[in-house]
Amino acid sequence: MTTLVILSGGMDSAVLLAHFLDAGHIVSALSVDYGQRHRIELEHAHALADYYRVPWECADLSALRPLLAGSSQTSEVPVPYGHYADASMRVTVVPNRNMILLAVAGAKAIGMAADQIAYAAHAGDHPIYPDCRPEFVDALEAALLLADWQQVRIARPFIRWTKAEICTRGAGLRVPFELTYSCYEGRSDRHCGRCGTCVERREAFTLARVPDPTRYAAEVSA
Amino acid sequence: MTTLVILSGGMDSAVLLAHFLDAGHIVSALSVDYGQRHRIELEHAHALADYYRVPWECADLSALRPLLAGSSQTSEVPVPYGHYADASMRVTVVPNRNMILLAVAGAKAIGMAADQIAYAAHAGDHPIYPDCRPEFVDALEAALLLADWQQVRIARPFIRWTKAEICTRGAGLRVPFELTYSCYEGRSDRHCGRCGTCVERREAFTLARVPDPTRYAAEVSA
Repeated sequence: MTTLVILSGGMDSAVLLAHFLDAGHIVSALSVDYGQRHRIELEHAHALADYYRVPWECADLSALRPLLAGSSQTSEVPVPYGHYADASMRVTVVPNRNMILLAVAGAKAIGMAADQIAYAAHAGDHPIYPDCRPEFVDALEAALLLADWQQVRIARPFIRWTKAEICTRGAGLRVPFELTYSCYEGRSDRHCGRCGTCVERREAFTLARVPDPTRYAAEVSA
Repeated sequence: MTTLVILSGGMDSAVLLAHFLDAGHIVSALSVDYGQRHRIELEHAHALADYYRVPWECADLSALRPLLAGSSQTSEVPVPYGHYADASMRVTVVPNRNMILLAVAGAKAIGMAADQIAYAAHAGDHPIYPDCRPEFVDALEAALLLADWQQVRIARPFIRWTKAEICTRGAGLRVPFELTYSCYEGRSDRHCGRCGTCVERREAFTLARVPDPTRYAAEVSA
């Protein structure tokens, strides 16, 4: 089985990569540069792919940034602080981002004759990101199966898992969490610790009782 | 009703633009540069948008060209000559191209709060391009409706029409066909007259009994 993992550089997709390697799949990784504020995550994705010795490619959609403006992640709109699932996080939504990522991954998968693409959406994403909901991925997979004579499926093993469950799974697989990057501020190698994704990340380590190797900004007690 | 028309610069999408303007919609046009060999079509799309005085944007996905390699349209593989519906035309298929175009158009439509995107797939496309089939567009629209809290539909009024029927409709709307461009060779302002899209274009004008204003290469009798 050949699986193309969409690898953001965050902890969920890092666990996803390890999950499919553990299952014996032939794995490649694809990252997407869509001009995101937190593009430092792409370096982490590359480092993770190197760590696991899997082929890595970064699809360059950075020129799309003006078209995707409106989100805090693709414009100068400030990144909100608070809990990931709060309504205030809606400003972080990049319109139709996941369809674009999955469409590009689908093209790559068809070109390399992969059996499936893998996508790390999880249950915690659903309240804020409509394009992480199971029904969205179901519908998009149906479209992808019709998009080419070659059949490519979309694997989403974590779609009903919490992030803490993903963290537990990753710890079991000895995922090098210190190589992953989540912060939406994307300022440096230190996570801000206060944006929605940082809050969610810290919470996941706490709930999973897994040591958090993240270097947070000085003002945040880890 | 606000409609974002995916405008390739070819005759089908030009007629689509005129079709929605005729229906009284507020229309914008989006073209996509995916590094296509026949990128001269983008200049024609721009000229058509100017002719109709509608806002035009070109989404720059040209950096995707290596990822999409394998098709004659995104690599050095020669463009085949012959009839558009022949099996030999499969080399012109860019993998998952239409899902990428529709995903990017969906993002733009969500950002501008458009009601729908419009897409000029037609019945003649189906034998070769799986992502022009009605069932593909149905499935992708279902996914797009789930991708965001804002509902954007996909209009495809020509999906069961022949190209000749589109040509007839365009003649009725006085579409400036001389501004449109179809040739997959994309060498110059002259159409080669022998590639699949040129053969299909010439056939459409003939069947529709509409004068063909196209400048073909010298060796082709128009």
